[in-house]
Amino acid sequence: MNAYFRCINGCETYPLNEVIYQCKKCGDLLEVVHDVDSLKGKSAEYWRNTFRERRAGYKFPYTSGIWNKKEWVNPLMDDKYIVSLGEGYNPLTPIPAIANELGLSNLWIKHCGNTHTGSFKDLGMTVLVSMVNQMIHKDKKNIKAIACASTGDTSAALSSYGSYAGIPTIVFLPHNKISIAQLVQPISNGSIVLALETDFDGCMKVVQEVTKDNTIYLANSMNSLRIEGQKVVGIETIEQLDYNVPDYFIIPGGNLGNVSALGNGILMMKELGLINKVPRIVLAQAENANPLYLSYKKDFKEFKPVQAKKTLASAIQIGNPVSRDKAIKTLKVFNGIVEQASEQELADASAKYDRYGMFTCPHTGVALAVMEKLVKDGRIEKGSSVVVISTAHGLKFANTKALYHENKLDGLVSKYANTPIVLEPDPEKVRKVLYEKIK
Amino acid sequence: MNAYFRCINGCETYPLNEVIYQCKKCGDLLEVVHDVDSLKGKSAEYWRNTFRERRAGYKFPYTSGIWNKKEWVNPLMDDKYIVSLGEGYNPLTPIPAIANELGLSNLWIKHCGNTHTGSFKDLGMTVLVSMVNQMIHKDKKNIKAIACASTGDTSAALSSYGSYAGIPTIVFLPHNKISIAQLVQPISNGSIVLALETDFDGCMKVVQEVTKDNTIYLANSMNSLRIEGQKVVGIETIEQLDYNVPDYFIIPGGNLGNVSALGNGILMMKELGLINKVPRIVLAQAENANPLYLSYKKDFKEFKPVQAKKTLASAIQIGNPVSRDKAIKTLKVFNGIVEQASEQELADASAKYDRYGMFTCPHTGVALAVMEKLVKDGRIEKGSSVVVISTAHGLKFANTKALYHENKLDGLVSKYANTPIVLEPDPEKVRKVLYEKIK
Repeated sequence: MNAYFRCINGCETYPLNEVIYQCKKCGDLLEVVHDVDSLKGKSAEYWRNTFRERRAGYKFPYTSGIWNKKEWVNPLMDDKYIVSLGEGYNPLTPIPAIANELGLSNLWIKHCGNTHTGSFKDLGMTVLVSMVNQMIHKDKKNIKAIACASTGDTSAALSSYGSYAGIPTIVFLPHNKISIAQLVQPISNGSIVLALETDFDGCMKVVQEVTKDNTIYLANSMNSLRIEGQKVVGIETIEQLDYNVPDYFIIPGGNLGNVSALGNGILMMKELGLINKVPRIVLAQAENANPLYLSYKKDFKEFKPVQAKKTLASAIQIGNPVSRDKAIKTLKVFNGIVEQASEQELADASAKYDRYGMFTCPHTGVALAVMEKLVKDGRIEKGSSVVVISTAHGLKFANTKALYHENKLDGLVSKYANTPIVLEPDPEKVRKVLYEKIK
Repeated sequence: MNAYFRCINGCETYPLNEVIYQCKKCGDLLEVVHDVDSLKGKSAEYWRNTFRERRAGYKFPYTSGIWNKKEWVNPLMDDKYIVSLGEGYNPLTPIPAIANELGLSNLWIKHCGNTHTGSFKDLGMTVLVSMVNQMIHKDKKNIKAIACASTGDTSAALSSYGSYAGIPTIVFLPHNKISIAQLVQPISNGSIVLALETDFDGCMKVVQEVTKDNTIYLANSMNSLRIEGQKVVGIETIEQLDYNVPDYFIIPGGNLGNVSALGNGILMMKELGLINKVPRIVLAQAENANPLYLSYKKDFKEFKPVQAKKTLASAIQIGNPVSRDKAIKTLKVFNGIVEQASEQELADASAKYDRYGMFTCPHTGVALAVMEKLVKDGRIEKGSSVVVISTAHGLKFANTKALYHENKLDGLVSKYANTPIVLEPDPEKVRKVLYEKIK
């Protein structure tokens, strides 16, 4: 079983252990391609049973939900070089109360933020760091460190997996983007954090220059290895549903890598005979950073980057998404929809679902708001089964939630604000308040 | 298969679905007792295979690592009333680099903070809320809400599971203990948060009075139902090690419920023939809140509560632990050790292990510091296999970590502080810095 990099335009292929991020001919992105004929040599039943037995066995590397599907993710890995922090096997939580309210047959949230570093990035980072670990220790490549230029979830995942593997990690940032609070994960993991006295473009120029000799591996959004881990989210979800494909997946999108990952995993299941239908995919954008939504409104006939405005959904605050062509291709295959949510809508959706036991990140709020919008206007039909992908743990957004409940989010009115009630320590008065509040 | 409450002194027994927290005769704590003879009716192999098959199957309620072991946890539950957020199945992560450094054969961290609400409390809260849910909907008991008097992990877990089940939750607190930031989880989940204009003792008096008619169920530290879920941590860990019992478990302790939970689960495995030896258990306390350590130094012949001083390990900042008798009993059975860690030691241990990919809470720092202390003085022998229980996700302590790395923790010197490096955007200068830092 083989896998390799291929230009998304089909120009050339490269080995998976080569330090390369773009096509040498046309400069466009690469994607990982698998030897599907070889995978088809095994029956669908073989794959289903293999995934099942691996999950039961608790044996490394199948303690990872990602490496559970190793041959579909990266068959070239020697187990001894796999770098895993127990990622994957994420809970798929039904919300029956809201399914009833909306007239859906089923509504689930897939908790991809319930991970070691608190976001779905772990699912892909295990693949990248494992590959680099093998490139260093088995292939004897001269790679000294892995770098990224990110304040967010990517830098947290990279620093955790890199330091766990004993590989130095570097975070490059414009100096005015540095705050210890935002960078507490890479800082804690011992990442070399470089605050460059320039702006973002200036910073990227330095990164290109410093990494051109290939001794520093770039874990940026152009690298397609991480997609191979992220694609497990759809495979695992459908497995958890006993191979009953839901009608809709709703996924938030910013840089647009995750939606094509979702699609690729599901297509692999179909190609290998584990399922015989595919869901529709809904890509949910924040209105303040909605270039794909605008393109969708024109049937994807044109795409114009936008200047992203500030959004609470910080991880998807992207005006010029790197993976837009991959995303558009996926959405066409999956009869997709792109819809958007305003700041008010995403904040209220996030808070509404928290009342039902969740602790949602703002990106999940975007996806939930969009989902409700589509149910209400009938584009998601009554009786549908819907899975919403939650991409980060709410604990990463505790401050935002506190501000919401204090009604301190600029320009927003917190519809679901909950505040403490101050009372004298009088049991009678306390009982009175409680019996008013509890139906 | 049966289970019931029994006074820890053996006075009386009560049904599990009775609203009761203390023995009616002697006033002491209760514990849940299982009909072990009935459980012994099945072979050890039956249990091992059953746990394994349930894990493989992805079928509710075995999507929960806790309910995976349902007959050992609460056999009286109808599946339809189980309230689960996918708790359990927590990663057991090896740290080979530090095992080598310390001369241990193996070192693992059991990540009980990798959960829906970010702490190990989820493991027990599913049991309590499920039982109350069944008491309301099946047994038709007149219970209107579940309450606690806690700012910490307990209130977060209660509010999440309660709101998921549609059961109102109440948090009672002294008014000067209210901060939205600390309470953001219960606030977000829609808990009724009552800020009483009195101190902690005054607050507890009101709680007793308001709950005495049993229409509000108390989820406080006296309630022993949660222990039944928490005890799965040891069972699951040993299962993950293919039933090879490690030499030592290290667990942080404050109110001391969790250590007896750990012990009870392991004893159940032994009694039912799944293992034939037990580990030693080390209880790790913060020096600033160390009443059990002081008692251990006198061979547990006496126990004196202390006035707990402020500690970064806030969840174990307890001077008069409720479950001390249970803990002492467990530690005697498991040839236990109690050791303590200073603020400096716990902060540095927390930061040290973060350099190896972890993102530890301060309580894990206490356990890690104590573990290293015992290895260094030989009380944990070279070549031992050690499991450290991590009780919360580091994301709950991001502020503390930021302060550590800014060297702003009062009275402490941050040995492992990591700070951003400010540089001109000059590739040569950047390369120079990088090659100094990367061996």
